Amino acid sequence: MKNVGIIGVSGYTGFELLRLILNHPKLNLTYLAATKKSKIDEIFPSLSSVLDFDVEVADAKTAAQKCDLVFLALPHKASMEFAKEILKYDVKVVDLSADYRISLENYEKNYTTHLDKENLKNAVYGLVEINRDFIKGAKLVANPGCYPTATLLAALPFIEYLEPNIFVDAKSGVSGAGKSLKETSHFVSVNENINAYAPLTHRHADEIKEKLEIASKKNINLMFVPHLVPITRGMLVSVFGTLKQDCDAFEVLNNFYKNEKFIRIRQNPVSVKDTAGTHFCDICVKTKNNQIWINSSIDNLLRGASSQALANANLMLGFDESLGLNKFAYGV
Amino acid sequence: MKNVGIIGVSGYTGFELLRLILNHPKLNLTYLAATKKSKIDEIFPSLSSVLDFDVEVADAKTAAQKCDLVFLALPHKASMEFAKEILKYDVKVVDLSADYRISLENYEKNYTTHLDKENLKNAVYGLVEINRDFIKGAKLVANPGCYPTATLLAALPFIEYLEPNIFVDAKSGVSGAGKSLKETSHFVSVNENINAYAPLTHRHADEIKEKLEIASKKNINLMFVPHLVPITRGMLVSVFGTLKQDCDAFEVLNNFYKNEKFIRIRQNPVSVKDTAGTHFCDICVKTKNNQIWINSSIDNLLRGASSQALANANLMLGFDESLGLNKFAYGV
Amino acid sequence: MKNVGIIGVSGYTGFELLRLILNHPKLNLTYLAATKKSKIDEIFPSLSSVLDFDVEVADAKTAAQKCDLVFLALPHKASMEFAKEILKYDVKVVDLSADYRISLENYEKNYTTHLDKENLKNAVYGLVEINRDFIKGAKLVANPGCYPTATLLAALPFIEYLEPNIFVDAKSGVSGAGKSLKETSHFVSVNENINAYAPLTHRHADEIKEKLEIASKKNINLMFVPHLVPITRGMLVSVFGTLKQDCDAFEVLNNFYKNEKFIRIRQNPVSVKDTAGTHFCDICVKTKNNQIWINSSIDNLLRGASSQALANANLMLGFDESLGLNKFAYGV
Amino acid sequence: MKNVGIIGVSGYTGFELLRLILNHPKLNLTYLAATKKSKIDEIFPSLSSVLDFDVEVADAKTAAQKCDLVFLALPHKASMEFAKEILKYDVKVVDLSADYRISLENYEKNYTTHLDKENLKNAVYGLVEINRDFIKGAKLVANPGCYPTATLLAALPFIEYLEPNIFVDAKSGVSGAGKSLKETSHFVSVNENINAYAPLTHRHADEIKEKLEIASKKNINLMFVPHLVPITRGMLVSVFGTLKQDCDAFEVLNNFYKNEKFIRIRQNPVSVKDTAGTHFCDICVKTKNNQIWINSSIDNLLRGASSQALANANLMLGFDESLGLNKFAYGV
Repeated sequence: MKNVGIIGVSGYTGFELLRLILNHPKLNLTYLAATKKSKIDEIFPSLSSVLDFDVEVADAKTAAQKCDLVFLALPHKASMEFAKEILKYDVKVVDLSADYRISLENYEKNYTTHLDKENLKNAVYGLVEINRDFIKGAKLVANPGCYPTATLLAALPFIEYLEPNIFVDAKSGVSGAGKSLKETSHFVSVNENINAYAPLTHRHADEIKEKLEIASKKNINLMFVPHLVPITRGMLVSVFGTLKQDCDAFEVLNNFYKNEKFIRIRQNPVSVKDTAGTHFCDICVKTKNNQIWINSSIDNLLRGASSQALANANLMLGFDESLGLNKFAYGV
Repeated sequence: MKNVGIIGVSGYTGFELLRLILNHPKLNLTYLAATKKSKIDEIFPSLSSVLDFDVEVADAKTAAQKCDLVFLALPHKASMEFAKEILKYDVKVVDLSADYRISLENYEKNYTTHLDKENLKNAVYGLVEINRDFIKGAKLVANPGCYPTATLLAALPFIEYLEPNIFVDAKSGVSGAGKSLKETSHFVSVNENINAYAPLTHRHADEIKEKLEIASKKNINLMFVPHLVPITRGMLVSVFGTLKQDCDAFEVLNNFYKNEKFIRIRQNPVSVKDTAGTHFCDICVKTKNNQIWINSSIDNLLRGASSQALANANLMLGFDESLGLNKFAYGV
Repeated sequence: MKNVGIIGVSGYTGFELLRLILNHPKLNLTYLAATKKSKIDEIFPSLSSVLDFDVEVADAKTAAQKCDLVFLALPHKASMEFAKEILKYDVKVVDLSADYRISLENYEKNYTTHLDKENLKNAVYGLVEINRDFIKGAKLVANPGCYPTATLLAALPFIEYLEPNIFVDAKSGVSGAGKSLKETSHFVSVNENINAYAPLTHRHADEIKEKLEIASKKNINLMFVPHLVPITRGMLVSVFGTLKQDCDAFEVLNNFYKNEKFIRIRQNPVSVKDTAGTHFCDICVKTKNNQIWINSSIDNLLRGASSQALANANLMLGFDESLGLNKFAYGV
Repeated sequence: MKNVGIIGVSGYTGFELLRLILNHPKLNLTYLAATKKSKIDEIFPSLSSVLDFDVEVADAKTAAQKCDLVFLALPHKASMEFAKEILKYDVKVVDLSADYRISLENYEKNYTTHLDKENLKNAVYGLVEINRDFIKGAKLVANPGCYPTATLLAALPFIEYLEPNIFVDAKSGVSGAGKSLKETSHFVSVNENINAYAPLTHRHADEIKEKLEIASKKNINLMFVPHLVPITRGMLVSVFGTLKQDCDAFEVLNNFYKNEKFIRIRQNPVSVKDTAGTHFCDICVKTKNNQIWINSSIDNLLRGASSQALANANLMLGFDESLGLNKFAYGV
C-alpha cells in the first residue's frame, strides 16, 4: 500500500482521480488540497455519503509528509510552484499540467517563464505505451495533454511512413475546457453547435509536434485544429497524412501495439462512446492510395488526464500498470 | 462465490448487469443468453478486449444447470415463460420484467394473460428498503419498475400523512424506453424536446398505486404523468400531495430511512447527475402550508433496474446487500 | 408604419425582438441600445451581413425621440428607471421585465423597492388572450413572465372548477436563465442532467398566484416547482389540481379559447418541439375522477417573452394582433 | 406568381421546403404528395392550425398539371422515376436526390442503374454561386448534396492553388440521415457520442471529387471522412490541403465570392450556430507555411438541401435569387 494525495482536487480531473484512487486496491488516499479549506462533498455534492474527507489549503510540505506520491491537478504555473517544493522531499509527483511536458523553448513560447528548469530536465513524458521504462524510474512524470495523447497514440506508429505535412482535426467534449465559467462553455453557446477554436495556435500543437519530431528525428509540419462538440466527455481525433511508401497500415498498427492492453485496434471508425469511462485508446486506420487517415478515441478526462496519471503512478510505485484502470464504458 | 447468469443480455439493463457482476467480489458469471447466438462484444463493441464470453440461445434448463441465480432481463411475457421453467430447479430468479410485480388483476388489466399464477403468488416485490426481510428468503424476486422505484421511495414515508389525491410528475431519460427503434426514440424527435406521454395510462401507474394502497391500507387516487427528457440515463420524480395533518417532513423522511446506506436525504432539490451511475436514491422534501412536494432522483438503469436487481440478488444469496453497488456518480 | 426601438438588445430576448421587428410589415427599427456602444453584429455574430445597425448607450430621451414604442428588454429595476423617463414623452412602452407585472406588495416582497409606483398603477398585464381590450388602450404594458404565461394560459380556463390547492411542475430550457455565466448554466452542469430549483421561492410563483386570485376572486394555494432541462429553448408545464365538480374539461378549454389563433387545443400531450420558434401556446387536458392535469407548451423566448411583447405592441399600435408572429416551428 | 408543389413532403427537407414556400412572396403552393394520402398536419403535428392542406398520393401527371415547378424530395431512384415523367410536360423540376448530380459512371458506381440517361445529360448541378447562369435556363436542376455543398464552397476558390491530395473532415447533424429509424439515429446511440462513418466510401465523396476535377481540370485525390455529431441540424467542414504556391488565402476567398450575398467570409472559425436556420455558407481560411485549412458551415437542411432548392427555383422561374431565403439564425 502506498499513500497518495491530490493537490487541486476541485476540478474535473481531481474528481476523476479521487474515484480512481478510492477504487484502487493498493492506494491509500491521505491528502486532498485545494485553494480553500472545505469538505469534499461540499465541492462535489455527489460524494455526500460516499467520502467524508477534509480538503486542506494546499501546502507542499504537508503533502510531502503525508504522501508517497502526489498528483498535481492544477493550472500550469501553479503546478511547478508546488512540484518544485514537493520534489525536495523523497516524494514522487505526477503533474497533470503542462509545466513539465515540453522543452523549455516550447514551454516559454506557449505558456510563461519557467520557474523550475532543473526538474524540467529530468521530467519524463508520461505517455505509458511509449515511455514505460523511463516512467518506472521517474521521480517526476509530466502527464500528457488530452489532445497530444489521442493524437500521438494515433500518429506515432506511422511516423516513419509519413510525409512531413500532417493535418489533425480533433474534437473534444466540453469538460476539456474545465469548470471555469466562460461564454464558450455556456450551455446555450455549446448546445446544437460545433466549431473549431484556436485553429493554429492551440498550445497542444507544439506538444504534439515536439513529440513527433523526437520520435521521427525530422521536422514535422503540423496543422492542428481542435473543435468543441456538445458532449460532456470524450475526444475523437482524425490524423491525415500522405504515405511516403506503401504499407499495410493495419499491420503496422497491430505490430506497434501488440501486447498493449489498453490500445484497441478497430476495423471500423472508433466512437467516443466506446471509450468514455475507460482507460482505452481505440484506433482505426484507413488508407486510399497514398493517403492515410488514422482515427483515435479516448476519454479526455481519463486516458487524456486522470487514468493516465494513475497508470503513471502505478509504474512509478512499482505496481502493475493496469491496477485500478477501468475497462467498462459508461455508455449504454 | 455463487454462479449467476443473465437471460436477455442484449438490452441496456443486460449491459449494466454484466458490468455489475464482473465487478462483484462474490459472483461468477457463468451464463449469458439472448435470442441468438453470438459473442458478447459483437452485441456491445465497447466490451471488445474486456470480456470474451459466448452468448447462447436462451434455454431454461441450461441456465438452471449453470447458475445459482438467474437474472431475467427480458420483456414481459417472455420473462414468465423462462421463470416458470427455471424455478422448477433449485435456482433463484430475479426478474426485471413486470411479470411478477403486481396482482393478477392489475397485471392482466395492464399487460396480458398471466401464464404462471403459481409463482406470481409467492414472488416478492424487490424494493429493498421496504421488503428486505422477505427478499432474503425469496426464490423469486420481482424487480420493481423504474418509475415505481423512484416514486415509491419518495411517497412511502409520507403515505399515512397524505390525502388520497396524489399527483406524480416524472421525467425519464431515453434509455428507459429500451433499445428498440421507435419514432419517439429517434435523436431528432428527442433532442431539444420534452413531452409527457401516456399521461393516465402508463402501466407503471397501477404498480405504484397498488403498492401505495398496500402500504396505506386505503384507496389512493394517483395521477401519474411520465415525461421523456433528452438525456440518456436518469430519472427525476415530483410527488405532490396534500397533508392531512401538520408534520415535520424532513424529520419524517430522516426517520423512515435512518440507517439506509443508499438513500440520501437532501436539503436542496435533487439532481439526476448526482445519482447517475450509482445505486443511490436521493430525496428532498418541501412543504408549504398543507401542500407537500417530494422530489427523488435515481439512475433509471441502475437503481431503477440492474443495481436494484443486484441488491436483491445479494440478499437472496446471503451476501451483504451493498456488495458491488457503485456509489460514484459518472457526472463530473 | 411605426417606429420602434429596443433598450437592452444584447440578451436573448433582445435578439428575438430584433428578428421579429425586422420581419414585421409595419414596424421600422429606429433605435437599439445596450450598456455600451457597439455594432449589432459584434454582439451577435450571426447578424453579420444581415443587419448593419449601431447599438447606442441607452438613453431614455433619445429612445423617446426616435420611437413610437420602446421595448425594454432589461433586468428588473433597470427597466423601471428607463420606463419612468420614457413615459414622460408621448411614447408607448412594452416592458419585458418584472417591474410592472404585479402588485406593489408582491413586487417588493419578491424583488426590490419600487421606484415608479405611479406607472405601476396604470400598467396593463400583457397576457393577450386575457387582457386584449385593456392592452389596446395601454401606454405601458407589462409583458408576463415565461412561467406565468404557460401556467396561466393552462390554469385560467379551469380556475372556477378547481379546489384551491394547485400544484405546478414546470420545465424550462436554459435560455430562460439568460446569458450571464453561472455554474448552473455551464454545459457540463446542465447536459445529461435535470433538477428542480427554487422549489417554493421562485419569483414567478407570486405572479402566477396573484393573477389566479384576481381571476377567481378567491385564495389560491400554489405550489410551484420549476425545473431546468437540457434544451436551449422551450417550456413545458404540468398544472395539477382537484375538481370541485364534474366538468367536460376538453369542452371547457375549447370554449375558453374559441377564436383564439395562437392557442392550440391538443388531444395528446403537448411537446416543446411543436411550439419552439412560434407564438403558439399548445394545451392538453386530461381528467381522472376528480383529478385534473393541464399541460401547456410555449417557446420561452417567444410566447414567454419577445413574441408576446410584439403581440402587445401590435395591439397598442392599432395593428392586427397577429402581424409578424411566426407559426412555423423550428423543429424538424 | 408561380405554382409549385412538393413530391415527398413527409421528410425533413419536405418540411423545410414547405415553410420556405409558404413564406415566399411569389410562390403558390398547389400540390403536396407523399406515398400515402393524408392531411399535412397528420404528418407534422406542428402544422396544426398553420396549414390545412391535403397530401395526395404522388402522381407525375397531376403534379405537372398543378405546378409550374415541382420539387422532388425523394430518395434516389424514386426521384428519377417521377422526374422523367414530369419533364414530359412543360414543367420545371428541382430534384433534391442524387439522381441527376453526377456523371452516369459515378452514379452507377455509387447508386444504382440509371433510368433516365436522357435528362441526366441536360441536368444542371445547382450550386448557385458556381452555376448561376446555367441554372437560369435549366428545366431540370440537380440540387447538390449537403456535404458537397459545404465542401465545394470551401474548396473551389482554392482549387488551382492546391496539390492534388485533399483531406476533408466533415461533421453533420443527425437530420442529415433522414427520418428513417436506424440504430445509428437512436437517441442513446447518438447522444454523448461522435464517430466517423463510411470513411472512404460515402457516396458524396465521388460527387465532391467529380466537381473538383471539373473545376480544376486535373485529378484530385480526395479523402473524405464524414462524422455524425449529436445535434439536430448543422454541418461543419474542414478542408485540409497543401498549397503549391504562396497565396493570400483570405484575399483569394474574398475575391472569389465578392458580391455573393449568402457567402460570409469570417476571420474566426465558423460555427454551426451562426448558419443554422439560414441560407448562409460561412467560410474561414487559415494557412501555415504551405498548409491550408478551409472551414465552412451550413445548415444541412437549408443550404444543404431545401433553401438551395429554393434558390435554384428562384433562378429557374426568373425571380430574384434571394427571394424567400432566411438570413436569421435560429440560435440565440
